[in-house]
Amino acid sequence: MKKFTGTTLILTGIIVVLSALLIGVLIFLRNQPAPQRGVMPVVKIAAMEPDSSIWGQNFPNQYSTFMMTESNNTATTYGGSDPYEKLNKDPMLKTLFAGNPFSKGYGEDRGHANALTDVENTPRLSDKTPGTCYSCKSADNPKLWSEMGMAEYDKTPFKQLGEKINHPIGCANCHDAETMRLIVTNPALEEALKEQGKDWRTFSRQEMRSLVCANCHVEYYFTKEGNYLTFPWEKGTNVEAMEAYYNEIGFFDWKHADSGANMIKMQHPDYEMYTANSTHYKAGVACADCHMPYMRDGAAKFSSHNVKSPLLDPARSCGTCHTDVNYVVERVNIIQKNVYDTMQNTEKALVSAINAIKTASENPNADQSKLEEARKLHRAAQLRWDYVAAENSMGFHNPTEALRILAAATDLARQAELTALQAVQVASK
Amino acid sequence: MKKFTGTTLILTGIIVVLSALLIGVLIFLRNQPAPQRGVMPVVKIAAMEPDSSIWGQNFPNQYSTFMMTESNNTATTYGGSDPYEKLNKDPMLKTLFAGNPFSKGYGEDRGHANALTDVENTPRLSDKTPGTCYSCKSADNPKLWSEMGMAEYDKTPFKQLGEKINHPIGCANCHDAETMRLIVTNPALEEALKEQGKDWRTFSRQEMRSLVCANCHVEYYFTKEGNYLTFPWEKGTNVEAMEAYYNEIGFFDWKHADSGANMIKMQHPDYEMYTANSTHYKAGVACADCHMPYMRDGAAKFSSHNVKSPLLDPARSCGTCHTDVNYVVERVNIIQKNVYDTMQNTEKALVSAINAIKTASENPNADQSKLEEARKLHRAAQLRWDYVAAENSMGFHNPTEALRILAAATDLARQAELTALQAVQVASK
Repeated sequence: MKKFTGTTLILTGIIVVLSALLIGVLIFLRNQPAPQRGVMPVVKIAAMEPDSSIWGQNFPNQYSTFMMTESNNTATTYGGSDPYEKLNKDPMLKTLFAGNPFSKGYGEDRGHANALTDVENTPRLSDKTPGTCYSCKSADNPKLWSEMGMAEYDKTPFKQLGEKINHPIGCANCHDAETMRLIVTNPALEEALKEQGKDWRTFSRQEMRSLVCANCHVEYYFTKEGNYLTFPWEKGTNVEAMEAYYNEIGFFDWKHADSGANMIKMQHPDYEMYTANSTHYKAGVACADCHMPYMRDGAAKFSSHNVKSPLLDPARSCGTCHTDVNYVVERVNIIQKNVYDTMQNTEKALVSAINAIKTASENPNADQSKLEEARKLHRAAQLRWDYVAAENSMGFHNPTEALRILAAATDLARQAELTALQAVQVASK
Repeated sequence: MKKFTGTTLILTGIIVVLSALLIGVLIFLRNQPAPQRGVMPVVKIAAMEPDSSIWGQNFPNQYSTFMMTESNNTATTYGGSDPYEKLNKDPMLKTLFAGNPFSKGYGEDRGHANALTDVENTPRLSDKTPGTCYSCKSADNPKLWSEMGMAEYDKTPFKQLGEKINHPIGCANCHDAETMRLIVTNPALEEALKEQGKDWRTFSRQEMRSLVCANCHVEYYFTKEGNYLTFPWEKGTNVEAMEAYYNEIGFFDWKHADSGANMIKMQHPDYEMYTANSTHYKAGVACADCHMPYMRDGAAKFSSHNVKSPLLDPARSCGTCHTDVNYVVERVNIIQKNVYDTMQNTEKALVSAINAIKTASENPNADQSKLEEARKLHRAAQLRWDYVAAENSMGFHNPTEALRILAAATDLARQAELTALQAVQVASK
């Protein structure tokens, strides 16, 4: 017993206490949230800050890749960011859009950083252009929508609203400045989701990595009263559901100059096409997985904000999941060629229909109810074609859906032509 | 030096010699061909033995699974082996095949072991049916072709030839009895390949695991003289190449009873559809990989010879490559529904075309050259539709190719209808 002196006992007690403290501290630290990855913020970013270069001080990798969208104007076989004039490459488009501003100019889009310059220089602009057309072009929008309300924003004429708009699409369109989390900023998207009983605040991060693209990459329309930005999603987001919605409210974007049909101009429904049971969507792949692949800068991992066609960087975009990138790129080419060829046939059928309806319209004895029927078929055919044509993937976002819709569009266009012929045939009997 | 006595030297010499011998024997054995896997053969199988049960003594697993094709008559949503009458399910087919034996009966196929029973009981049989119709129905064929030559075989009337035919499709249709290797047995396939400058003897085993299916699962025709079995592959195997071939030689299977068009009846072009750049084909997958998945019986691994729809055993058929089988089966359902819906629209367009041409034909004032043009369009439309409809996968073997072709078929059918209308319109002016 001699060995356990008072000193020894005290020292042992101290060791036990210190050990317990150490364990306690370690457990406490383990239960703390992980520290934010990356460097300490350089600047405090104000809520809805429109200037992306300020965000860029804290996030130089994201910002510098985003800025690449300004100059990276590379074409792919059927898309990319080379701003060529589609009306020159495919003159049938002039007939298809007769009476619509798209017959004056239909340039391929350039990257995000050019959005503001390009919308202010499109030949489609006129004195009647509403401010609503800025909705997808500027990082000033979240702040403006918050200050003015969307209704007021949309009522302001384009040129007048332009005085308040100075920045192209940027960080504020998709990110919360405080937490950097992905958010819905476009009130039209929030409202369209609400109509379907959905709240994006309950979405997973992976779902948000597609949904933020739907702030803009969707079909939309402006209400006749107030040019209020609206997504036609009340009955669903596939092409038939949107058509049913438009028919129910009797909406049309313009009256076709040759056929006299009340037409819908479909606008880049990328989100709707992709989420219509496409193979990648059903496999859980988000838009950002392919269009904003992960990159490395030293030890930092970040998603590229040089948003572009995956065909321009297939090793990163496809190679994360697919082992044989050459095989995958060949698949894309085969699919896009199939869709392109089929779409050309649809356009030929539409042009024939338009010409037949025009001819029948000029015949004073033509059966007017047959003519009206032909015009309705023209509308139904062309909105389907445009759903695929205005979508930015030449069908690749959803190959079987695109081809199914084009087959239906061709069928309806030929039926329009037939009905126009019958309108005259009845007359000549 | 004392240690190396005479005895020691002798013993050392013996050891050296024995070691050299052992090494020699081992090298010799290593250079020998590997012994055949599996058990020793029970019986010697004669060349081209038509009776599969004899082969079955040596290969009980393959034979017992093959025999399952006799009773496994399970339907899938759009296919399978349930012998339902397609004319009842889809009455439009009666109009499409007016004047052709397929308008009398179009039963879904049952499994391989029923091929002989079913061909001898089809309502399509008549006194004019040639022996050629046995070409894909019996394991007696390789021996008969070898003994009679295919020209003589094809010239023999069906009923007369039937006296020599006693076995359904079996081992001899795809295997060499001596080596069990996969072989082309149908002379028509050998000739079609030769026309393309191909020799199947140079094909890899994996290529043969698809090519043997092309002994039967292809589009073919009988020459008007001698009913000689021929594959229309001279210009290629896609639908446009086969159409160009048929047009060049002016071939038609029958004259349509209503439209008067010279028609082509497409026959199950499974091999052509699959090899037209389909995603699975380009990935190196063979027909047998999905339709004859590997199974185990104790230590023996063998490919199931219960050839059937992969949807009836997706865990084995798809699960070998795809980790999420439920996801894959859902994809198949989505694709097949798209193809089915599109095909229904094509059929409606074809029926409209047929009726319009019929009506115009009955008008004595109709423009005959327009009418002829309409008939040619009917032929072009229906052979495309039938290429997809007669193919056994409801488009799944090659989804974008199937939908591309259906879109074109609908377009051509509506053009046929339009042209028929114009034939009458010109008349009534």
